[in-house]
Amino acid sequence: MSAKNELLALLRQSEGFVSGEELSRRLGVTRAAIWKNIELLRAEGYTVESVTRRGYRLRDVPDSISEAEIRANLCGHGSFGCRVVSLPSVDSTNEEAKRQGDAGAPHGSVFVADEQTGGKGRLGRRWISPPGSGLWFSILLRPDVLPNEVTGVTLLSAVAVCRGIRALTGCEAKIKWPNDVVIGTKKVCGILTELSAEMEHIHYLIPGIGVNTGTESFPPELADRATSLLLETGRPVRRAALLGKILEEFELLYDRYGVSSFPEEYRSLCVTVGRTVSLRRAGRQLVGTACGVADDGSLLVKTRSGETLTVSSGEVLVQGFYGEHIEGA
Amino acid sequence: MSAKNELLALLRQSEGFVSGEELSRRLGVTRAAIWKNIELLRAEGYTVESVTRRGYRLRDVPDSISEAEIRANLCGHGSFGCRVVSLPSVDSTNEEAKRQGDAGAPHGSVFVADEQTGGKGRLGRRWISPPGSGLWFSILLRPDVLPNEVTGVTLLSAVAVCRGIRALTGCEAKIKWPNDVVIGTKKVCGILTELSAEMEHIHYLIPGIGVNTGTESFPPELADRATSLLLETGRPVRRAALLGKILEEFELLYDRYGVSSFPEEYRSLCVTVGRTVSLRRAGRQLVGTACGVADDGSLLVKTRSGETLTVSSGEVLVQGFYGEHIEGA
Repeated sequence: MSAKNELLALLRQSEGFVSGEELSRRLGVTRAAIWKNIELLRAEGYTVESVTRRGYRLRDVPDSISEAEIRANLCGHGSFGCRVVSLPSVDSTNEEAKRQGDAGAPHGSVFVADEQTGGKGRLGRRWISPPGSGLWFSILLRPDVLPNEVTGVTLLSAVAVCRGIRALTGCEAKIKWPNDVVIGTKKVCGILTELSAEMEHIHYLIPGIGVNTGTESFPPELADRATSLLLETGRPVRRAALLGKILEEFELLYDRYGVSSFPEEYRSLCVTVGRTVSLRRAGRQLVGTACGVADDGSLLVKTRSGETLTVSSGEVLVQGFYGEHIEGA
Repeated sequence: MSAKNELLALLRQSEGFVSGEELSRRLGVTRAAIWKNIELLRAEGYTVESVTRRGYRLRDVPDSISEAEIRANLCGHGSFGCRVVSLPSVDSTNEEAKRQGDAGAPHGSVFVADEQTGGKGRLGRRWISPPGSGLWFSILLRPDVLPNEVTGVTLLSAVAVCRGIRALTGCEAKIKWPNDVVIGTKKVCGILTELSAEMEHIHYLIPGIGVNTGTESFPPELADRATSLLLETGRPVRRAALLGKILEEFELLYDRYGVSSFPEEYRSLCVTVGRTVSLRRAGRQLVGTACGVADDGSLLVKTRSGETLTVSSGEVLVQGFYGEHIEGA
């Protein structure tokens, strides 16, 4: 660890003020070096009080996703976050995870970026990821299952994000099938999972998660569809804290369910069930009522003709969500 | 096409001799250029007869995997081989296919190499691929199915290789479950399929195929397990011709079955069924009799206690094959 990060860790642990003399002694550097590193921390946005004869105190931390800030927010038990790669800008955190996965990065590695220049959404869409406005990250998993046994991971990811958002903001985050996280009727988080595999062996599985944290406003065409934690609560959330909480919840769920079984909590979080939905099937747009989620994660939809469809992929519009009004609903 | 490849194509089409004058006229180059290109072809191993006043005749082609030689062996209808990349040496044709797949190479692209320096087999094994001794290639597929619907591709690949080997050599190639191609009791071809996907969309699916064509002898530890087409027939087979035939058969099967359904022909080619087999299950080595192949490609094994197991992955030893003697069989 660098002297700066050691200093930060010491300040973080301390309840009140710590004298320059003690910091100098514990880090084994001169008091001039302590002062220099305090200035470096201030330049990064840390609020460090300094009072003559009392010393230094950490009063506030910035919304930083530096590796030091992320490490300070990991719960410390578990392997998720064993390796953290934080980048100012990247094409897509999933692409970075794939590159490093190909090069042998271990299970539990986390890739996070302040900005994605080519962020990806489901179904080939773009995911707008401007600097500082959201938490964009990917987790590299190496589960020992067959490639056709991983559908649970996307449900798990959505549940973990709900838990993380609820714990840190109190917002009632829920899930729009299959894995959008919504607050009210608007999307706050999207998840795109990718994998690389042989027929009998998974090289890696990568859930990529994008949470709108600090966006202050959306363009008019998105205002009905998208929201951010800032817009919902009026208060900023620290991305490193949210990341730490989501990783902790994700690992708890992963250890309990793996990627092959169904996390029961998904059902109670899924807002799609019970609502009027619209979807394409065999070239036609059908309307029906979502009546449940099967154990393989498929959405069950009862059509007006009384037939029950099993929907395992594609887009499902939900009446009243994302500004959708379904014809005849 | 280069003048050399145009010249080669002309010589290939011609039944008998073609005069230098006619070649010069049809290619629009000088007779000196014709002579120069004939010399280039000879340097590549082509046997071109030249007889005064009659002209030139192509008498024999080398075992080359140049793109020109491969193109000349494609059946011409179909999209497999729409793009052919032939390399003198590569880490692994699957790795090359993945790199070019990430960069957008189209469905049906084929990647072939004279030598693989890091050839890969199933279950993390190495696949020895010295220059000139085998046909090492990968096909890039972009099927429009879900990632858990691709298990058929590995069965399809094995059937296509059997058909190709039978057509070109007359050898009775068969399949050891799941997708080794064998002649007699020895392996002549291995297949490793890899894929990159999202939960709802396959980026690409790559069957990688390695056929031992020209190996003259195997080291003692492999002599019981491995064979080559040269060892089986005593005659060399041209890799470009074999590749062309396998691609043709593969595309026929692919168009008929896709990657999600079971190619019925697999059952009649599978030598494992009816034999004593041994496999690991829950930490124990079990012995039983292979009694069939399910429609999802799983091997059905009846154990001595009368139970029927469904085996979908891992290694299955077969009595009498690859020099295996199963204890108590």
